[in-house]
Amino acid sequence: MPARSLDFYFDYISPYAYFSWRKIHELCDRYDIVLNAHPVVFGKLLDHWGQLGPAEVRPKKTALYKYCDRYAKLHNFEFNPPACHPYNPLPALRLSLPEVSGKDQHRVISAIFEAGWSKGADLSCRNTLAEILDNLQLDSAALLAAIEFPEIKAGLKKVTEAAISRDVFGVPTFIIEDELFWGNDQLEHIELYLQGKDPLDAERVEKMLARHRGIDRKSFVQRKSEAG
Amino acid sequence: MPARSLDFYFDYISPYAYFSWRKIHELCDRYDIVLNAHPVVFGKLLDHWGQLGPAEVRPKKTALYKYCDRYAKLHNFEFNPPACHPYNPLPALRLSLPEVSGKDQHRVISAIFEAGWSKGADLSCRNTLAEILDNLQLDSAALLAAIEFPEIKAGLKKVTEAAISRDVFGVPTFIIEDELFWGNDQLEHIELYLQGKDPLDAERVEKMLARHRGIDRKSFVQRKSEAG
Repeated sequence: MPARSLDFYFDYISPYAYFSWRKIHELCDRYDIVLNAHPVVFGKLLDHWGQLGPAEVRPKKTALYKYCDRYAKLHNFEFNPPACHPYNPLPALRLSLPEVSGKDQHRVISAIFEAGWSKGADLSCRNTLAEILDNLQLDSAALLAAIEFPEIKAGLKKVTEAAISRDVFGVPTFIIEDELFWGNDQLEHIELYLQGKDPLDAERVEKMLARHRGIDRKSFVQRKSEAG
Repeated sequence: MPARSLDFYFDYISPYAYFSWRKIHELCDRYDIVLNAHPVVFGKLLDHWGQLGPAEVRPKKTALYKYCDRYAKLHNFEFNPPACHPYNPLPALRLSLPEVSGKDQHRVISAIFEAGWSKGADLSCRNTLAEILDNLQLDSAALLAAIEFPEIKAGLKKVTEAAISRDVFGVPTFIIEDELFWGNDQLEHIELYLQGKDPLDAERVEKMLARHRGIDRKSFVQRKSEAG
């Protein structure tokens, strides 16, 4: 039997992606699941689905940071968000492509996440990224050169587009056998799924989703028609 | 010492508001907290903050319904969403104002929530609402007449505007002594707060929030400038 796998979609911009990255390895190990990590550009997901990010609604960002501070304290790790946020995540994301970081991909992702959300690093800064890679004993000059290659830039775009075509609308997203889970709070549900104990009645939910829309906000209808 | 109170902001449109309503009474009872329930128009919050609702992003609605189905099964209650969704929640919300349902407010809210999210009722339909009120032995004709009064319509608007002025951006929102919590997944944090064990380092988070923005999406900047 081929090994089962879990596709993990993330952007460093999201603290929830970091929180779930801290736990997903152990979960995958426990159920003998291959973990495939896919860096995606969260901003492109937002553009595609016409949504605002949490950091783009002032009081939502406040609530989110407070939640994260509490969550980290209760889970015994440091919460110290990026020096500036939002920031340009492209260099960090490109470094995290398997074509760039290869067999070290998971170590690189862990180190960048930790620097960003537990050490307050400026992840848009190449010197900071070089330091992170140096600390892992990796060839930072070679890696930072690689992310300038057009095929690597195109690679990140392709992964993001592929994510959108699989209905990924936020990060973190987990897909196992085409079943999509979104958010750090769904690890309990993912575990039940992996145990073969998913309580979901998929057929019934299909029917619920087919129930009609009764009313739509003006701005929603407008945005939909603008999108074609 | 005056009793402490918790302000609960909700719209029937949100299943998470229902889920937390199922638990918040017990929590408030346990800590001797007065529960003030405030119906608000979620669509107006979205308009104000420029955000889309979960039901306005197709794959997000799918993920949300699946999450809710699993959640309800794991918490031993029925998940059966409204006959149409989104729908016009105004009559249901107006019935839930203390000026309309008075001392029966909490019973009315419980019954409408349950009809909407556990029994698949069409909450935009006045006959359905009448039936819900009749089952509670309330004078449905009088209550449904009351929600046509201009001062009641204005009342719901006022509560929604007051919520926005307190930075409420989503439902359910809980405010205790000006501390805002958002979402059904924050009940654990609310309980710690009520116990005087809030792990939050508020001053430090203030400073984190003052860190500058490094980059903004084009569509975010546009929307902000349109909003003046």
